[in-house]
Amino acid sequence: MLPDSIIALIAALNKLPGIGPRSAERMALHLVQSDSAAVRQLADAILLAREKIQFCTTCGALTEKSPCAICDDSRRDASLVCVVERAVDILSIEKSNAFRGKFHVLGGRISPLDGVEPEDLRIAALEKRLTQEPIREIVIALATDVEGDATSAYLAKRLARRDLKISRIGFGLPAGSGLEFADELTLSHALEGRREML
Amino acid sequence: MLPDSIIALIAALNKLPGIGPRSAERMALHLVQSDSAAVRQLADAILLAREKIQFCTTCGALTEKSPCAICDDSRRDASLVCVVERAVDILSIEKSNAFRGKFHVLGGRISPLDGVEPEDLRIAALEKRLTQEPIREIVIALATDVEGDATSAYLAKRLARRDLKISRIGFGLPAGSGLEFADELTLSHALEGRREML
Repeated sequence: MLPDSIIALIAALNKLPGIGPRSAERMALHLVQSDSAAVRQLADAILLAREKIQFCTTCGALTEKSPCAICDDSRRDASLVCVVERAVDILSIEKSNAFRGKFHVLGGRISPLDGVEPEDLRIAALEKRLTQEPIREIVIALATDVEGDATSAYLAKRLARRDLKISRIGFGLPAGSGLEFADELTLSHALEGRREML
Repeated sequence: MLPDSIIALIAALNKLPGIGPRSAERMALHLVQSDSAAVRQLADAILLAREKIQFCTTCGALTEKSPCAICDDSRRDASLVCVVERAVDILSIEKSNAFRGKFHVLGGRISPLDGVEPEDLRIAALEKRLTQEPIREIVIALATDVEGDATSAYLAKRLARRDLKISRIGFGLPAGSGLEFADELTLSHALEGRREML
């Protein structure tokens, strides 16, 4: 019933994360009825972003130039490096405004079942940075699940040195959420991670 | 923090219907990390669809050629025309598989406050079709709200002829939904639209 070009557009949009068939249809029908200039602007923005964005050769962040703005920022604490799974995780931490060090993107988690071995991650690159940069502490910011825990433990063991502090971000009750909304695992993490107050 | 080209892409995606800032960010970050060929395919699909799609000069549907496939389909009942507000409404009705006539897109609803007068809608085009096509019945499929009701009443009055049946789609309880989920207006429509069973 729908013209072929709209069906093709819906199929292409449907591949985007979080976009189901109905959203894709809604977007496609909007686009074909939009102002031509606005449509071209969107297509251009897609192509331009894809063309310009690369991974920082140092930390693995998304950037238009390498090294990225964070690696290149001398005001940031070069002795502190936060290890994240994906480049987009950097954004989440930056939004919190709670970290002033540098980053390192692993590019995944160790998962033998999915064929992801330690050498598939950017661990060697991190070891190289440890020899070249004045890094004193590494904060591992991987999620807490089986693979995140295993990867964190592996990293801590592999990177262990007398003069390097290795920590992992805290887990527990999210801000503003009551106990009644927390699942058992979150509560057990919260209890485990309790801190003395006096 | 984010590179300019990603910010521009997020802004462009954010203009799409149903896409908030967070979805736009997620899509943009996905796109810049996607395979170049897939990204180009999406951009091309957007441009191609926008370029190819036009409005059917007869009914106002979205189509790649005019007249559209429905207007051109001699197996469909040419004596029955369903009047809808927007071109996309045709899709919803077609999906129901409950209508085998033709369509006419009004292009809006009468709304003096928004400056939409009857002459802004495709009513004259419908009157012209009434003189040229063997139309015997018009089913008005506008939503039931103040403007939809006013536009339906206006249309019924303006198109009234002795040999033309004019009806409006039924309103009431949606399929599979219980009384407890229906609002008062839906229930009042359902009661008003009750039909004798024996």
